[in-house]
Amino acid sequence: MTTSTALLLADLAGVAVFAASGASAAVAKRLDLFGVVFVGFVAALGGGIFRDLAIDEVPPLAFADWRYATAAVTTAAAVFWLHPQLARLRTTVLVLDAAGLALFTVTGTLKALDAQVPPVGACVIGMLTAIGGGLGRDLLTGEIPVVLRREIYAVAALAGSIMVAVLHGLGLAGTLPLTAAAVLVFGLRVVALRRRWAAPVATLRPPRTRGPGPGPLW
Amino acid sequence: MTTSTALLLADLAGVAVFAASGASAAVAKRLDLFGVVFVGFVAALGGGIFRDLAIDEVPPLAFADWRYATAAVTTAAAVFWLHPQLARLRTTVLVLDAAGLALFTVTGTLKALDAQVPPVGACVIGMLTAIGGGLGRDLLTGEIPVVLRREIYAVAALAGSIMVAVLHGLGLAGTLPLTAAAVLVFGLRVVALRRRWAAPVATLRPPRTRGPGPGPLW
Amino acid sequence: MTTSTALLLADLAGVAVFAASGASAAVAKRLDLFGVVFVGFVAALGGGIFRDLAIDEVPPLAFADWRYATAAVTTAAAVFWLHPQLARLRTTVLVLDAAGLALFTVTGTLKALDAQVPPVGACVIGMLTAIGGGLGRDLLTGEIPVVLRREIYAVAALAGSIMVAVLHGLGLAGTLPLTAAAVLVFGLRVVALRRRWAAPVATLRPPRTRGPGPGPLW
Repeated sequence: MTTSTALLLADLAGVAVFAASGASAAVAKRLDLFGVVFVGFVAALGGGIFRDLAIDEVPPLAFADWRYATAAVTTAAAVFWLHPQLARLRTTVLVLDAAGLALFTVTGTLKALDAQVPPVGACVIGMLTAIGGGLGRDLLTGEIPVVLRREIYAVAALAGSIMVAVLHGLGLAGTLPLTAAAVLVFGLRVVALRRRWAAPVATLRPPRTRGPGPGPLW
Repeated sequence: MTTSTALLLADLAGVAVFAASGASAAVAKRLDLFGVVFVGFVAALGGGIFRDLAIDEVPPLAFADWRYATAAVTTAAAVFWLHPQLARLRTTVLVLDAAGLALFTVTGTLKALDAQVPPVGACVIGMLTAIGGGLGRDLLTGEIPVVLRREIYAVAALAGSIMVAVLHGLGLAGTLPLTAAAVLVFGLRVVALRRRWAAPVATLRPPRTRGPGPGPLW
Repeated sequence: MTTSTALLLADLAGVAVFAASGASAAVAKRLDLFGVVFVGFVAALGGGIFRDLAIDEVPPLAFADWRYATAAVTTAAAVFWLHPQLARLRTTVLVLDAAGLALFTVTGTLKALDAQVPPVGACVIGMLTAIGGGLGRDLLTGEIPVVLRREIYAVAALAGSIMVAVLHGLGLAGTLPLTAAAVLVFGLRVVALRRRWAAPVATLRPPRTRGPGPGPLW
C-alpha cells in the first residue's frame, strides 16, 4: 500500500465517522431516510466543500471524486438502520470522531498552505475544514452548534492547525511531524472528553429592567 | 420563439414559483416586507448560487443576469400583498413548485456535467440546485428543512438527475430525453403529494436513563 | 496617512464593530469563549467571505490578510471579558454598527462592480456584504435573522448600494460621492433607529380550519 493510498483510506475513514455523527443526530430528530443521508453527507463533506471553495479548488473534492460521496452516503444509510446498536458504541464513536477531527485539521491546513493562503488564514481554513461539517449538521437539525457551546473541540483543531502552519513555515512538513500534529489534536480532544474540560463561559447578570413601554432608543 | 428564449422563460417561471414559496413561508413567520423579499430571493436563487460557486461560474447567474433577481423580487413582493388570495391556490402552488423542482434538477445537473464534474458529483449538484433554495428558506425562517423530514421531494430530484447523467453519458442528452427526465421528477413529486408518499423514518426507543449526576464519559 | 491606509483602518474598524455585535449576541446565548470568538468572526467577516466567493477573489480577504482575522478575534475576545461594561454603551454600539453597515455597503458594491458584475447583481452583493455577517450571527445563535424582521437595516444598505452603482455608471465614483453614499446609509439607519421606523408586515388572518383528520391534498 502506497502512502497516497493510505492517505485516501484515512480520509475516507474520517468521512465515514463524520457521516455517522451527522446521521445519528438526524435520526434523533426524526428525519426521514433522505434527511438522515443528507445530514450525514453535510456533516462528512461540508467542511471540505467550504475549504475547496475558499481555495478555489473546483469542483470541490466531494463532487469531483465519487468515493467521498459514496463513503458518506453508505455510512449514513447504515446508521439509519443500525442506530440502536450504535448507541452502545457511544465511546467508540467519540474516539473515532476525535480521529476524524485530527485528520481533517491536518489535511485542511496543508491544502490551504499549498494553495498559497498565508499562515493565519490557512489555520482558520484548516479548523473550518474540521468543524464545518459539524456546524452544518447542527444548523440543519435546528441546534445552536455544539462546538460553540461547551467543549474543547474547535480549540483542539486550532492548536493542530497552528502546529501544521509552523512546521510548514520551517520546511518540516514531513510525514512524521504532521502525524505528531494529528496526534496533538486527537490527544487534546480525547483528554478534554475524559476530563470534561470546557472553555469558559462569560458571567451574565440579569438584564436591568428599562421601565415600562417601548420608548425611544436614546 | 427560439429554444433558448423558451428555456429562459421556463427558468424564470421556476424562479418565480420558488420565490413565491419562500415569500409565503416568510409571511407566515411575520417577517417584514424586506424579509419576505429576501427569503423569496434565497428560495428562488440560493440553489443556483451554490451550483455556480461549486462549478466556478462566477459571478453566479443570479448576480450576472438582472432578470433572475427581478423575477424573484417582483414575485415575492406580489406575494407579500396578495398572500390571502394565494392561500386558496395552495394546490396550484404545489404543482408549480413540482414543475420548478423538475426544471432546476435538469438544468442544474446539465450545467455541472458541462463543467466537467464527474457523474456522481453532477447528480448531487443537480439535486442541490433544486432543493438548495428550499433549504435556505427553512434555515432563514427557523425551521428544520421540510425536505429532510417527511416528503418525497429531494428523492424525486435525485432520480431525475441520475436519469440526466445516464442520458448524458450515452450521448443522448437531446431535448426530448431531457424533457422526459423533467417529467419523471414532476410526476414522482405530484404522485407523492397525491398519495402522501413519504420516506421511512427510523424507529427510536426512548433513551435509557444513565443514572443521576453527570459522571465521566467512560 | 495615505488614502489606502485610511481605507484599511476604516475597514478594520467596521470589522471590529461587527465582531463586537456578534460576540455580544453569543455571550447572551451563553456560548463559551471559543463560541463567542467564532460568532464574532462570522459576524465581522462572513459577509465579505461571501462577497469574495461570489466575485472569485480567492482566497477571500478574511483569509488572505491576517489583520482582518486578528481584528475580529481580538475584539470578540475583549467583548467576552468586558461585556458588562459594554451593555452601558448600547447606543454607541448601535451607532458604530450603522457606520460599519455604511462602510461595508460601499466597499462591497464597489468591489463587485470592479469585478465586472452588472449593476443589479453588484447592488445585491454589496447589500449582502453588509448584512451577511449579521445573518450568519443570527443563524449560529438560533435566531430568525433580525434583519428580516423589524428594522430598516438592509434597506438602508440597498439604498446606498444603488447610489454607488449609479455613481459608478456615471463615472463619478470618486472619494466625495462615495462618502456621500456611505453617509446616506448611515443616516437612514440612525434615523430609522431614532424614530423606530420599520418595514411593513403583511396582515395575517387566522388560518381557516380544514376539518378534522389529514385527508388527501386535493
